[in-house]
Amino acid sequence: MNANIIRPTPEPTLRRLPAYHRVLQRLLDRGRTVVSCTHIAEDLGLDSTQVRKDLAATGIIGKPKVGYAVPALIDSIETYLGWKNVTDAFVIGAGHLGGALLGYDGFKAYGLNILSAFDNDPAKIGTTIYGKDVLPMDKLPDLVERMHVGIGILTVRAASAHEVADIMVMAGIKAIWNFTQVKLQVAPSIIVENMDLSASLAVLSRKLAERNEVSVSPVIPL
Amino acid sequence: MNANIIRPTPEPTLRRLPAYHRVLQRLLDRGRTVVSCTHIAEDLGLDSTQVRKDLAATGIIGKPKVGYAVPALIDSIETYLGWKNVTDAFVIGAGHLGGALLGYDGFKAYGLNILSAFDNDPAKIGTTIYGKDVLPMDKLPDLVERMHVGIGILTVRAASAHEVADIMVMAGIKAIWNFTQVKLQVAPSIIVENMDLSASLAVLSRKLAERNEVSVSPVIPL
Repeated sequence: MNANIIRPTPEPTLRRLPAYHRVLQRLLDRGRTVVSCTHIAEDLGLDSTQVRKDLAATGIIGKPKVGYAVPALIDSIETYLGWKNVTDAFVIGAGHLGGALLGYDGFKAYGLNILSAFDNDPAKIGTTIYGKDVLPMDKLPDLVERMHVGIGILTVRAASAHEVADIMVMAGIKAIWNFTQVKLQVAPSIIVENMDLSASLAVLSRKLAERNEVSVSPVIPL
Repeated sequence: MNANIIRPTPEPTLRRLPAYHRVLQRLLDRGRTVVSCTHIAEDLGLDSTQVRKDLAATGIIGKPKVGYAVPALIDSIETYLGWKNVTDAFVIGAGHLGGALLGYDGFKAYGLNILSAFDNDPAKIGTTIYGKDVLPMDKLPDLVERMHVGIGILTVRAASAHEVADIMVMAGIKAIWNFTQVKLQVAPSIIVENMDLSASLAVLSRKLAERNEVSVSPVIPL
């Protein structure tokens, strides 16, 4: 085994790990110190083989017929997902959504610390949102470098998403959490994770419409 | 063809339609009245056959070698996704995230109108957030019925997500937009669309960590 060879973890595994962490934390709160894959799998409606495989990605192997030590497993997931080394981030775009994210305290549990926001709007620059400064965009390159910030949370309007993403990349941002509906075209070395509210809402609205159409349609004779 | 037979649209198609709409709207703003699948596909980095198939789901067929009339295509997508019939929704959980969504003006373009929020916290009940009332949870069933609200946006903490989701379903909510990290177990007739920030963030953080690990690892001799 060579520690320098990094095998990327499959995305579905990464997406499930926070849910395992939540189940484990709840068990620990209730005084449980040992848990099996089967238990976690049942709690989340997953397959236990899948759970075992996902947990193995964090580098922890359970004991056959015993299971996992709950605190060790929590620790393993937190280390693996980087929740222990808090990662600093900037929000780019201090509109409603950007402002909301500045005030959302739930990110800290996942190791994300939003330092401040950047915007081009003179009416916003110099204000604070939930105690965090809104700074002018032209300060971004300097602050990314000085504060070693790797993550930029993109919350501008779709029309300026591409232009702003380019500015972020030039400023030295390595990973973009993209809350716009724009599919960004950036260099392959830049990590982009999409969080598209409009796409999610489209699924919800249409399914609801289809459900309502079905329920009012007359019975079709056999 | 029988209009009463509803074939559910594949989710990936639904997720792409808002992006097509954005491209089309931009073309229309520039005075373009006709567009081809190829043009849309290139703009979004997709396959043109895929685009044609997705657009056909909304009930519109382009003319060979001519393409689509841009205004008709915009209209078709908007009608299909229900953006023209504004859908009312309640936010359940008036914390930071719930409050943020109450203030986010971007939903209106997608036909979602958030009427008010519900919470159990006496300190929040009776206040307004961005001009919208925070109401007590026990008023939910009555208001869902009287105002015919189908969508509930769940933004409570993970620990109470299941309990609150059950209350929403009993109150008559048909579709839950789930912003918690909890995989909800509800009746199959209830539509659940997950918007899990922690899962998305897990992917982003880990990829960034893997990227940094790779970049600092020594060159392995051949």
